[in-house]
Amino acid sequence: MGKIAIGFDIGGTNLRAALIREEGHILERRSVLSEADKGIEFVVKNLARLIQQTIKGGGIAGVGIGIPGIIDSSKGILTQAPNICNVNNYPLRDMLIEKIGQSVPVFIENDANCAAIGEWWIGAGKDAKSLIILTLGTGVGGGIILDGVLWNGADGMAGEIGHITIYPDGAKCNCGNFGCLESYASAVAIRRMVDHGLERNVETIIREKITNRSKERIPEIVAEAAIEGDKFALWVWEEVGKALGIAIADLVNLLNVEMVIIGGGLANAWELFIDRAKKEAKKRGLRAPIKRAKIVKGVLGDDAGILGAGYLVFKEKGII
Amino acid sequence: MGKIAIGFDIGGTNLRAALIREEGHILERRSVLSEADKGIEFVVKNLARLIQQTIKGGGIAGVGIGIPGIIDSSKGILTQAPNICNVNNYPLRDMLIEKIGQSVPVFIENDANCAAIGEWWIGAGKDAKSLIILTLGTGVGGGIILDGVLWNGADGMAGEIGHITIYPDGAKCNCGNFGCLESYASAVAIRRMVDHGLERNVETIIREKITNRSKERIPEIVAEAAIEGDKFALWVWEEVGKALGIAIADLVNLLNVEMVIIGGGLANAWELFIDRAKKEAKKRGLRAPIKRAKIVKGVLGDDAGILGAGYLVFKEKGII
Repeated sequence: MGKIAIGFDIGGTNLRAALIREEGHILERRSVLSEADKGIEFVVKNLARLIQQTIKGGGIAGVGIGIPGIIDSSKGILTQAPNICNVNNYPLRDMLIEKIGQSVPVFIENDANCAAIGEWWIGAGKDAKSLIILTLGTGVGGGIILDGVLWNGADGMAGEIGHITIYPDGAKCNCGNFGCLESYASAVAIRRMVDHGLERNVETIIREKITNRSKERIPEIVAEAAIEGDKFALWVWEEVGKALGIAIADLVNLLNVEMVIIGGGLANAWELFIDRAKKEAKKRGLRAPIKRAKIVKGVLGDDAGILGAGYLVFKEKGII
Repeated sequence: MGKIAIGFDIGGTNLRAALIREEGHILERRSVLSEADKGIEFVVKNLARLIQQTIKGGGIAGVGIGIPGIIDSSKGILTQAPNICNVNNYPLRDMLIEKIGQSVPVFIENDANCAAIGEWWIGAGKDAKSLIILTLGTGVGGGIILDGVLWNGADGMAGEIGHITIYPDGAKCNCGNFGCLESYASAVAIRRMVDHGLERNVETIIREKITNRSKERIPEIVAEAAIEGDKFALWVWEEVGKALGIAIADLVNLLNVEMVIIGGGLANAWELFIDRAKKEAKKRGLRAPIKRAKIVKGVLGDDAGILGAGYLVFKEKGII
């Protein structure tokens, strides 16, 4: 015993937890509502309760938490978290330890960084020493592994691949900049492109497919339409692929990594954007490094972050 | 004795060497023509002769060589070198050792990577643990130091910052891509902008300042004209600054480094582009990491690469 970690994934809607063995096997899963819209205190309360229930049996090496936002992981501080109310330099680790009321090691890291670690540990990148992950979801997250170690920056803020500029005069991003990767290769970006297309009365079957209830499912709807041959929908995925390809060439020219992994919900539409992404990356990347870099789909799906969070515990405690 | 390294900088015109002490003091300098236009064999011959002359007295810990091109430093192979004739996977280290005919350790690294090491060791970045250097010369080179270690990639090809895409539909770069940083913030880029301006008959005093003999000095001429208030010349430096600022924001969002150092010949025109570069970087960078990153001018000038090459010897031999 003692070689089990709890890995957490903090979503805007749910807190997902898993009991993970040191070789990466998931023993058990739990999930509760996160109540992120009510503020960070609610998230911490729900998180603490779930941890208490889980560690009751004893033998837990520690808790690893992946959370969307900017983290100072050495201090356990949540600097910024766009999807949780009222977060500004919140001392998450200390507050959580206080709430749990028991001595249990807690490690906090950005969720995309956790996904990078997970895929590197036992996923698509398990044979690579250096890789970059791009998680295409509501936004675009990123994580960088160099020589088998997460590079999370001077202050734990590295890997914000979603905010590299692709088109200097492009669409406005939530971060304030214009033309970020996130403005072209995320669910938010797809919604923007669809809204814009519908306003301009483009011919597309997407119009009939969208109901008020399905607004959240727009990327899936655009994927369905593209598979049915809808030209506008196919164009949207080409735009996603093109932006992604430009970003991949930048990353590979800059970091000469062995592998670029694409994960997140949008990766389900893989066939609709990957050819364009690879073509664009090859066109723009320097010959030798772009030829060398494998561009692959993540294999751990939603579990990448949870598993990476678990790995952090094993690593920090010297277990693996 | 024995704690002296020879650092080399291989230029298109000259081979420059320095005897360097372990604390970074330069004892002596030498220089010969490189004859790079005649091919790599001539460069190696000249390099070997200079090394033989220098090591005659004995007590040399090793030779470090900074060279513009793509290097596989672990194997000592020069993969590509745009400024030297006939280079294609040339086994530089082995050929050199054969030519020298004596047992002396030889280490080879990309010149901008050497400059990054030099500035980090005893230059502008000596108090930083993570930094990026951009060397603005004929082209744009780059080097990345993370946690006190050069990140030169899975195959020694990392740091090609000059070839990240700034404007996807921008000017064609020598690498084949369009809109690379190098196409907007190098001597080649400035020449292109000036040629284009003169063809379009813009009003500028640059026209009178250029003679056939001064073609190579165009960046200096454009700097002089800008200082004299020439509007076109000022615009050229604004373009340099803007492209640089976009690149700096990308780098800082991605790697969250403590410092970005700008070196190379164009850094002499610092006052003409840096305000625009910083403004653009601040506009596009994520709040916390861009506020944190210091943007500074290199302090070692042309010696950064030579000193970095020397450091490699001390480091690899376990002397420092």
